[in-house]
Amino acid sequence: MKLYTYFRSSAAYRVRIALNLKQLPYDAVAVHLLRDGGQQKQANYKQKSPLGIVPALETEHAVLTQSLAIIEWLDETYPQVALLPDDADGRARVRAIAQTIACDIHPLNNLRVLAYLTKNIGITEEQKNDWYRHWVNEGLAAVEQLLANDPRTGIFCHGDTPGLADCCLIPQVFNARRFQCPLDDLPVISRIVAACESLPAFQLAAPAQQFDAE
Amino acid sequence: MKLYTYFRSSAAYRVRIALNLKQLPYDAVAVHLLRDGGQQKQANYKQKSPLGIVPALETEHAVLTQSLAIIEWLDETYPQVALLPDDADGRARVRAIAQTIACDIHPLNNLRVLAYLTKNIGITEEQKNDWYRHWVNEGLAAVEQLLANDPRTGIFCHGDTPGLADCCLIPQVFNARRFQCPLDDLPVISRIVAACESLPAFQLAAPAQQFDAE
Repeated sequence: MKLYTYFRSSAAYRVRIALNLKQLPYDAVAVHLLRDGGQQKQANYKQKSPLGIVPALETEHAVLTQSLAIIEWLDETYPQVALLPDDADGRARVRAIAQTIACDIHPLNNLRVLAYLTKNIGITEEQKNDWYRHWVNEGLAAVEQLLANDPRTGIFCHGDTPGLADCCLIPQVFNARRFQCPLDDLPVISRIVAACESLPAFQLAAPAQQFDAE
Repeated sequence: MKLYTYFRSSAAYRVRIALNLKQLPYDAVAVHLLRDGGQQKQANYKQKSPLGIVPALETEHAVLTQSLAIIEWLDETYPQVALLPDDADGRARVRAIAQTIACDIHPLNNLRVLAYLTKNIGITEEQKNDWYRHWVNEGLAAVEQLLANDPRTGIFCHGDTPGLADCCLIPQVFNARRFQCPLDDLPVISRIVAACESLPAFQLAAPAQQFDAE
């Protein structure tokens, strides 16, 4: 399998964690989001990912896009080390946590959106930081409640083995720290992040560990 | 089952289509996003949906949030009239189309984001419309390619029965029309939308047909 990735992309980071948790080998291909006017916008890459975003996973049969869809495909195709629970209620809960991050926090703060706000609307650096932190703070506060108020939360987001929700949470917290978002009021998230960060699967997926890191 | 909904919410609209396709009865509870300073922000609703967004689906056991997670739960719990294909590659494709809409178009244009742009950043009405159309145009162009370049596209997004991707596409096109986004360069999407709109499941889920429509 070939993963089209960028070290700092948190959507790619999610998939790297999932691949590592399942101990699946893959070839990483760097798509530099800032070089050459954005390599993700070049025609040869957009044939793989029409929206021009990372990650994409090239398998024997197809090129898969969208990080959550890729992780579900990995989980169905390589079911050893399951990343989703085996009951429908549990899966709905894990997907809801993952989607709170992947739909309601991350898309607002990714590179193409920040670029639009800066270039097309002309917001200041301070307004950009406020925007970024607003969605992180609001979104992670909701995730904290989903975790704090549910007995199914364990060492990890759902039970005592890491899964899809953890694959999304750790990259989002990485971004939150990068933009100095306060995490003091998020004790459950902080505890789970510490548990994940003790595992090699998460450590080796981190941006700084990637071959294309700068 | 009880669906917390708002007639114009496209995330709620997705779930209404799915419930109708499966012919599942439900009680609709209106959460008015503009009345009382936003009923979705009130404490009793945020106990159900910590982020304060619609829809939420209350089942016998739990309150489920996030429209795609809810639809997957419905599909697993009521498998008659399947909304996802039965092969992993097909599911990955359908989820990728759904997530291109639910992660990369819709979150940028929903009410809370437009309100932030208007109130906190002070953008003009024209800038708001440009912003809205930019993400719709870019996102739907990508969806068009995912559909046009794949033999698995049928009468609907994936094959000849409607499914998860169609549940996301129709509400997004409804929004696109509302903001006068041009659809002329999207022939496959336009054809699929016409096919969906001929079905009662889609017709009855439309905003204008809801008991809380204005």
